[in-house]
Amino acid sequence: MKVLNRINSSADIKTLSDEELNTLADELRGFLVETVSKTGGHLASNLGAVELTLALHRVYDTERDRIIFDVGHQSYVHKIITGRRDRFDSLRQYGGISGFPKPHEAPDDAFIAGHASNAVSVAVGMAKARSLSGEHYEVAAVLGDGALTGGLAYEGLAAAAASREPIVIILNDNNMSIDPNVGGTAHLLQSMRIRPGYIRFKRLYRDLVSKTPAVYAFSHEVKEYLKDRLLPVNMFSAMGLNYLGPVDGHNLEELESVFRLARDMEEPVLVHVLTKKGKGCRFAEEHPEIYHGVGPFDPETGELKDVCPGFSDRFGSALCRIAEENPKVVAVTAAMALGTGLDGFAARFPKRFQDVGIAEGHATAMAAGMAKQGLIPVFAVYSSFLQRGFDMMIHDVSLLNLHVVFCLDRAGLVGSDGETHHGIFDVSYLRTVPGMRIFCPASFGELAEMLDTAVNRLNGPVALRYPRGGECGPYHDVHTEREYLLRAGSDITLVAYGTMIGEMLKTAEELVSRNISAEVVKLSEIDGDVFPLVRQSLEKTGRMIIAEEVCAAGSIGMVLSAQAARAGIPVQTALLNLGEGIVPHGSREQLMRDFQIDAATVVQEACRLCAQA
Amino acid sequence: MKVLNRINSSADIKTLSDEELNTLADELRGFLVETVSKTGGHLASNLGAVELTLALHRVYDTERDRIIFDVGHQSYVHKIITGRRDRFDSLRQYGGISGFPKPHEAPDDAFIAGHASNAVSVAVGMAKARSLSGEHYEVAAVLGDGALTGGLAYEGLAAAAASREPIVIILNDNNMSIDPNVGGTAHLLQSMRIRPGYIRFKRLYRDLVSKTPAVYAFSHEVKEYLKDRLLPVNMFSAMGLNYLGPVDGHNLEELESVFRLARDMEEPVLVHVLTKKGKGCRFAEEHPEIYHGVGPFDPETGELKDVCPGFSDRFGSALCRIAEENPKVVAVTAAMALGTGLDGFAARFPKRFQDVGIAEGHATAMAAGMAKQGLIPVFAVYSSFLQRGFDMMIHDVSLLNLHVVFCLDRAGLVGSDGETHHGIFDVSYLRTVPGMRIFCPASFGELAEMLDTAVNRLNGPVALRYPRGGECGPYHDVHTEREYLLRAGSDITLVAYGTMIGEMLKTAEELVSRNISAEVVKLSEIDGDVFPLVRQSLEKTGRMIIAEEVCAAGSIGMVLSAQAARAGIPVQTALLNLGEGIVPHGSREQLMRDFQIDAATVVQEACRLCAQA
Repeated sequence: MKVLNRINSSADIKTLSDEELNTLADELRGFLVETVSKTGGHLASNLGAVELTLALHRVYDTERDRIIFDVGHQSYVHKIITGRRDRFDSLRQYGGISGFPKPHEAPDDAFIAGHASNAVSVAVGMAKARSLSGEHYEVAAVLGDGALTGGLAYEGLAAAAASREPIVIILNDNNMSIDPNVGGTAHLLQSMRIRPGYIRFKRLYRDLVSKTPAVYAFSHEVKEYLKDRLLPVNMFSAMGLNYLGPVDGHNLEELESVFRLARDMEEPVLVHVLTKKGKGCRFAEEHPEIYHGVGPFDPETGELKDVCPGFSDRFGSALCRIAEENPKVVAVTAAMALGTGLDGFAARFPKRFQDVGIAEGHATAMAAGMAKQGLIPVFAVYSSFLQRGFDMMIHDVSLLNLHVVFCLDRAGLVGSDGETHHGIFDVSYLRTVPGMRIFCPASFGELAEMLDTAVNRLNGPVALRYPRGGECGPYHDVHTEREYLLRAGSDITLVAYGTMIGEMLKTAEELVSRNISAEVVKLSEIDGDVFPLVRQSLEKTGRMIIAEEVCAAGSIGMVLSAQAARAGIPVQTALLNLGEGIVPHGSREQLMRDFQIDAATVVQEACRLCAQA
Repeated sequence: MKVLNRINSSADIKTLSDEELNTLADELRGFLVETVSKTGGHLASNLGAVELTLALHRVYDTERDRIIFDVGHQSYVHKIITGRRDRFDSLRQYGGISGFPKPHEAPDDAFIAGHASNAVSVAVGMAKARSLSGEHYEVAAVLGDGALTGGLAYEGLAAAAASREPIVIILNDNNMSIDPNVGGTAHLLQSMRIRPGYIRFKRLYRDLVSKTPAVYAFSHEVKEYLKDRLLPVNMFSAMGLNYLGPVDGHNLEELESVFRLARDMEEPVLVHVLTKKGKGCRFAEEHPEIYHGVGPFDPETGELKDVCPGFSDRFGSALCRIAEENPKVVAVTAAMALGTGLDGFAARFPKRFQDVGIAEGHATAMAAGMAKQGLIPVFAVYSSFLQRGFDMMIHDVSLLNLHVVFCLDRAGLVGSDGETHHGIFDVSYLRTVPGMRIFCPASFGELAEMLDTAVNRLNGPVALRYPRGGECGPYHDVHTEREYLLRAGSDITLVAYGTMIGEMLKTAEELVSRNISAEVVKLSEIDGDVFPLVRQSLEKTGRMIIAEEVCAAGSIGMVLSAQAARAGIPVQTALLNLGEGIVPHGSREQLMRDFQIDAATVVQEACRLCAQA
């Protein structure tokens, strides 16, 4: 029987011998490759965090202690060994195990994760709550070097240092998330990585001062002198954090002893762990960027299954064509060059490409500076991550009406990454930004044409939003007018934008057989509050259904309703959207059914509205 | 004739003798105190930045070079000496000089400012634009130590280091903005401040290596050896920035020579300048926190004029009463203890009070961690600054439905601070956050009662929004029902929330004389999309006017229009709001008139709608 099969909690991990632990590490790697090869998900980072996670469970009890994973895509091992092994083949499937920590799945998941760099802040809050409540659990945060490129992590580290609370911050440094371009933080870590054996000095120092009270008592100067000699200053120690490391992240024994030391210091401590992304799996070690987040693949060879180009790739190649003609164009990404399709651009125009790390706020403010001095920055970013740049879009870009082009990938439902990644708030927040033009391509052709318009024919802030994956349903045309009458009808007006137009075309077809004549209006732009074609259509039909892959607040359905009221047009409406907007993981189709924004629901609502009259 | 009177540009500053420069510094201090004593504004930080600003203009040409002020409330001297002296008595007045940099005022204002920590990011963008365009101007950012507590500054510093672009970052460290509580960053700066004369070593080192090519050529090791000996590592140098400092920020000669050195290094350099807030004005030196942002005062004694308690103070005392009873309550601020009225709480419950520095994202995520572990955090923050916490409100608070109470001060029009500070986007962004309850007290009594409800009777995320200043107009009652019929009528429904209810009561009175019977519905809560009382009223009147101090996108007028349409109620509407939402500085009354959301406009619209029928 496998060791893995008898592990269901931190307590079980603590009973294992060193040999069993090493066996377990091997078994976990096999289990990870096998599962993720079927479900898709995050592979390389989890392979790199096997020993780190096991060592955590040796030292902590995750049911009681609060271990906060940053981003959380490296939490698979933690999930597998805390009672979720048998359900793990449901990973990222509808109704199954989430690819990110979720407190509702198990008490061992201390907090939610998905967006980067928040873990230290959350840990500080929990540690303060513990002290104020007089409780005694441990608090630790686990973050990658990528997370350290986000300013939120820095705010958290400063607060951890100031708190003097016992908090252990584990920096899982796989030297990967940080591209050489990204700079300051990478430079910092690089200078620390070159000190092998440093942890031994550190321990020596601590043993000396802690086990020899005389040294403590003798003189502050002596201690400081020793410290200066033994502990070179780095950013973390300069901020007032205790620093331990670097530690070999694949040496279980060393990890466990350092974690124990850190825990027992009862102070804010940062432990710097060096790991290898993809560890133990040839193809993942060789191409960690490919096997970071990946679809199904062959577990033996790593060969990827059915990868077909989607909006991201089309965006990347369209931007290359535009940049070829217009030397002012520069591309910006926040650690998502591959995900947003900018890898080709980066190779072709290295000087005109900027990866800023996980720093959407900086990317936005930097782009504003570029635009003020005459460049045309195109910031490609996932819709849900740009939430971090909301203030900068208003303050730095909009108030000066600067020409920055935001390309929001993963707009709408993203599927298996779930609630932290769905791009369902952007319509609302983009519309709030003064002067923002918002385009919604519904096909690859429209994406290319709208991007050209955004870059070459407009001024001021512009956004394009397009979904994960490719074109959906029957629509592949190019109609970039602000409003376009896609199909004439007389009984009811169906409105949609982006790839949701596919559902409306299906609906209109279906309604023919029910003797309902549906007019379909496609919106290409969703800023402002004037939509004359919709207004005209409503004057005729008096009925409207709009289906949107966004939260209810700030949805276009409200805008169109308000327009009708303002114009004094009585209209019966069904505004279909995601309501309150917490949407779990699952396929787009499944979620559209569940939240009733699919063609079947539109048909049903159309019948209801037409029956009422 | 005063020296000041012949200064209109960087070029003029460059012609002055040392003696004239010192005279000018004195004259500027007198001019600042006199002007700000009449207009109100930021005094202490500008008094501290006199020499720093003059030295900048000795070294740079601000018409051509790009000097980016962070926050920008320390830019008065810069404005006075770049052609705006004669209009400076219009500071912060409607149509007059802004209290923050504004490129439309003069080419010398390189960028907009108002929110903290963005300057380095903007500078990096400008420096990259310069290089890619093959131009040759200089780029510098000026930021305070307070700005350094924001993670955005860290993102910018990392990017500046990585860029290797010539950028000079001037850290104006007045050891003030950072409260001892704030921690990590303060600790870091403290350790640097204690090295007087250090700049001399630094210069020696640079002279040695730059003027002795042999040293450069000889051996990289030698250079590194020298560097290690002469230049202690700090965070900035660890990140890869050249570090110069600390420099006496009131010694014009030293400042000028260090700025020149920094500029000529043609690399990213951070210059650490020590200044004294309030320098040269007794009462401002003694109480820099009071004379940071201040209303009109007596220029001789510093005595403040007409300070009457407003919503902030009432919030502070209400929270103290609640905290007295409920030990789970903790208060959080992002560097605005005084501004949000939390100073009393801080003194009374020091352990339950957290000032995190200018770090709204961290404050929100930390509060989420606190709430997850059973505390009830109340985060008091200016509405426009909470834009920085938008993602964390969704990701860290809302997705786990955590009980965090957001108290948004400065909601609506803020008056003289202008476009960067108006709290006019919060209705839209708060409504986007899943599960957020949003209360709008219209009177002091309602604030106290709603705060009690938010803390003691609800769960999940809750927000209260209330304006700068006090109660407006005739409403002082307490009606905390979600909707309340304040006045019955039959011709038209007037809807408002918060202190705007005052305008509606005035309007209803005025309409009596025009034979229009107005029904007034006051909303206390503006989340969700169900407002039965409004619906019922619209069924009766068929006409609605709503007046809101917010941008059009996501406004409540749209929500109510959509409800009417959904319910099939034909209704004529006038939705009054701030439209696109870029609103300049000026008094609230003036701006309400200009943007047509005042009682006079409502009267006019009511007459129009009632005449149409």
